[in-house]
Amino acid sequence: MAGLFISFEGVDGVGKTTQVERLRAYLESRGRTVVTTREPGGTALGRAIRRLLLHGVDEESADIAPRAEALLFAADRAQHVAETIRPALDRGEVVITDRYLDSSLAYQAGGRELTATEIRELSMWGTNGLLPVRTYLLDMDPALSHSRLTHAADRMESAGNEFQNRTRQAFLDLAAGEPERFRVIDASRSIDEVWASIRTDIDGLLLRERRDGANGGESA
Amino acid sequence: MAGLFISFEGVDGVGKTTQVERLRAYLESRGRTVVTTREPGGTALGRAIRRLLLHGVDEESADIAPRAEALLFAADRAQHVAETIRPALDRGEVVITDRYLDSSLAYQAGGRELTATEIRELSMWGTNGLLPVRTYLLDMDPALSHSRLTHAADRMESAGNEFQNRTRQAFLDLAAGEPERFRVIDASRSIDEVWASIRTDIDGLLLRERRDGANGGESA
Repeated sequence: MAGLFISFEGVDGVGKTTQVERLRAYLESRGRTVVTTREPGGTALGRAIRRLLLHGVDEESADIAPRAEALLFAADRAQHVAETIRPALDRGEVVITDRYLDSSLAYQAGGRELTATEIRELSMWGTNGLLPVRTYLLDMDPALSHSRLTHAADRMESAGNEFQNRTRQAFLDLAAGEPERFRVIDASRSIDEVWASIRTDIDGLLLRERRDGANGGESA
Repeated sequence: MAGLFISFEGVDGVGKTTQVERLRAYLESRGRTVVTTREPGGTALGRAIRRLLLHGVDEESADIAPRAEALLFAADRAQHVAETIRPALDRGEVVITDRYLDSSLAYQAGGRELTATEIRELSMWGTNGLLPVRTYLLDMDPALSHSRLTHAADRMESAGNEFQNRTRQAFLDLAAGEPERFRVIDASRSIDEVWASIRTDIDGLLLRERRDGANGGESA
């Protein structure tokens, strides 16, 4: 059985962590081996990079330049794919990641001075072109999601509400551009309602996977 | 007066540090403001990246994947250019760097699995296309240069002599491909003889700079 690569995307506070765990439990109950992971910080190298990105090197050091930041995110992802994601997929496992390529596109390209095309090319080079078969975009009004957050604000989160609104729109635009890969999920509903939408879709994916497997795995 | 960007390249132990200091002292005696810097590690972020590259994150962590490594080197360079090199050049100063793009090409492309074209494109993206006006390649037999090294072997240096020979050849190939930018300096001679070769060339560069300045800076 081939591996299955799934990502969750959306601004902070929309409930990605909860839904990743629901999906993991569900797939394990169906007999699958599941690896859950996250970006930034899915590997030891990634966590070290994440510390640099969120907090800088020290109090006196200069801000991280936009291109350096983009390259660091791409390095985190390259290591994440090489060390964690590809080996698990090669073993036929399910990999669920909390954030992947689309977060880079929405946060860096949507919020800062680089183009989405540049960010995407960096990332595709770093990962040797690996994309999820399914991306769940948990979508809701950032004003609502912000009130759900309980942990301390970091550099990204303190960038303010206008930034969050722009980022949400960037995610929606990405989803509109790749309707085959994305499912946009209304995350303003209850946890159970959100999960019901995801489960319906994943059941369809698993059915397709079995059918394709029976047919020799010829379809996309 | 426009800034002047100069790099030194070559395998470890060929005497780059000594010649960078000679050139700095000479240019300062000619009234120029000089910034000397190095890669990897020319900025606080770069030093943090360098620690990751040379020593890994911790004892247990996986090796850094080749694409992640290339992206980290490019991030170091992007920050180096944005934080140190471009601001100094914009102030009309001389910037002398101990290693730049060509080290990435020679070490990563010459020694590992990625192509020089890929590494070069990453770096050119990260730096917004900034190249030195002059690159001094200090060249000598790696067996000779290795015996000059006194500091402890790091990951790169312990890769062995075959790797050093390949890297030397990669540097020479790069120089042959860009004869306008490169000067290949026989570094097996005495420090004074090596410096005399560099000084002759830099005098020509300064003369050209003054002439171009008088002509309105039209030539390359």
